[in-house]
Amino acid sequence: MYKVRVGKKILRANEEIAQENSRLLGDAKSLCLNMISSPGSGKTTILVRTIETLKDKVKIGVIEGDIQTDLDAERIRATGTAAIQINTEGACHLSAAQVHQGLSDLDIEGLDLIFIENVGNLVCPSAFELGETGKLAVLSVSEGDDKPAKYPAIFAKSKAVLINKIDLLETGQIDFDIEKVKTECRKLNKETPIFLVSAKTGEGMDQWCRWLEELVGSV
Amino acid sequence: MYKVRVGKKILRANEEIAQENSRLLGDAKSLCLNMISSPGSGKTTILVRTIETLKDKVKIGVIEGDIQTDLDAERIRATGTAAIQINTEGACHLSAAQVHQGLSDLDIEGLDLIFIENVGNLVCPSAFELGETGKLAVLSVSEGDDKPAKYPAIFAKSKAVLINKIDLLETGQIDFDIEKVKTECRKLNKETPIFLVSAKTGEGMDQWCRWLEELVGSV
Repeated sequence: MYKVRVGKKILRANEEIAQENSRLLGDAKSLCLNMISSPGSGKTTILVRTIETLKDKVKIGVIEGDIQTDLDAERIRATGTAAIQINTEGACHLSAAQVHQGLSDLDIEGLDLIFIENVGNLVCPSAFELGETGKLAVLSVSEGDDKPAKYPAIFAKSKAVLINKIDLLETGQIDFDIEKVKTECRKLNKETPIFLVSAKTGEGMDQWCRWLEELVGSV
Repeated sequence: MYKVRVGKKILRANEEIAQENSRLLGDAKSLCLNMISSPGSGKTTILVRTIETLKDKVKIGVIEGDIQTDLDAERIRATGTAAIQINTEGACHLSAAQVHQGLSDLDIEGLDLIFIENVGNLVCPSAFELGETGKLAVLSVSEGDDKPAKYPAIFAKSKAVLINKIDLLETGQIDFDIEKVKTECRKLNKETPIFLVSAKTGEGMDQWCRWLEELVGSV
């Protein structure tokens, strides 16, 4: 009981800062997407490929959340895009306060689109609002087709689902039933578009980037 | 500060139950291993293959931790091995109290080896002691070779590391430097044995099962 009460208190304090972040993003007319997935699903590779595709048309900034290291921010900066690295030092998710600092460091005026790459964790980040416009769930085919049923929260809350590493399906060494995943995702969230992509080969990335460009245009 | 103090209180309460679990396991002369990994690294498939290899020599029981569903326990039971499913209903790790109930339901007297398959999460479960004899980290090659550096806690604490899905390396479509991972793991924990396995094809499983059998014999 004690745990639950305190948990609510922490979530409420986080929610207040998230609302402030949301106001800041609204004032700057910036779309902000919070990417959530297991470790190693390919979030950074998706970002790099998306930035390369859209960078002449959309002004993008990135906030990178990791427990340790700034490997991911370095990969983003190599594209010429601004990236703020936040190290959570053991914590399993980004907080609204950390993102608030990140938005300030990024200087969001003039940015059309801000990606937050959350800590690799399919569970905890989905419970912490950051003030984002929407969440993105990323699932790689090598993780298995039972994941939406086993980790429903993020799939229920996402504005879009990206199924990544579809190039691995061609090897015949991955058991992954795309239709089963689509059905499970639709049960949790009827409206969510589902994109099949390989950030590595580029397959499917055009369709995803077109959707994203339209979403940015609608803000 | 409030958060940190309460966090410590929760961890201390958990630690006390973990010590009781450890006593129960000691009395029963049962070895208990707590498997921790990202979602979809292949923990359940490793368990099924390990049980099939050892079941005539080692009496095994399994406690399955999942947020939702009993898909994993069903897969274990199909081998004829007892499995207790614990659903955490949203929580990101198993607690010592949940494992205490699981050990009671399993009836551990007469079991040589108990596996705890924790919730798929490379972060939070490593902070919660369950009274286990040791932790096992599982990393699949499709998650990438930067994971020990990015998620060091579990690799530092593990009694052994299993690198799974090595059959995917043959496809040439996975960038994964085994030597880099070994070097990172050794930096975090000099003594940990590292097993390269494919639970799907069986490659490397003999060596892992021999090590496990010796460990069980040493209790």
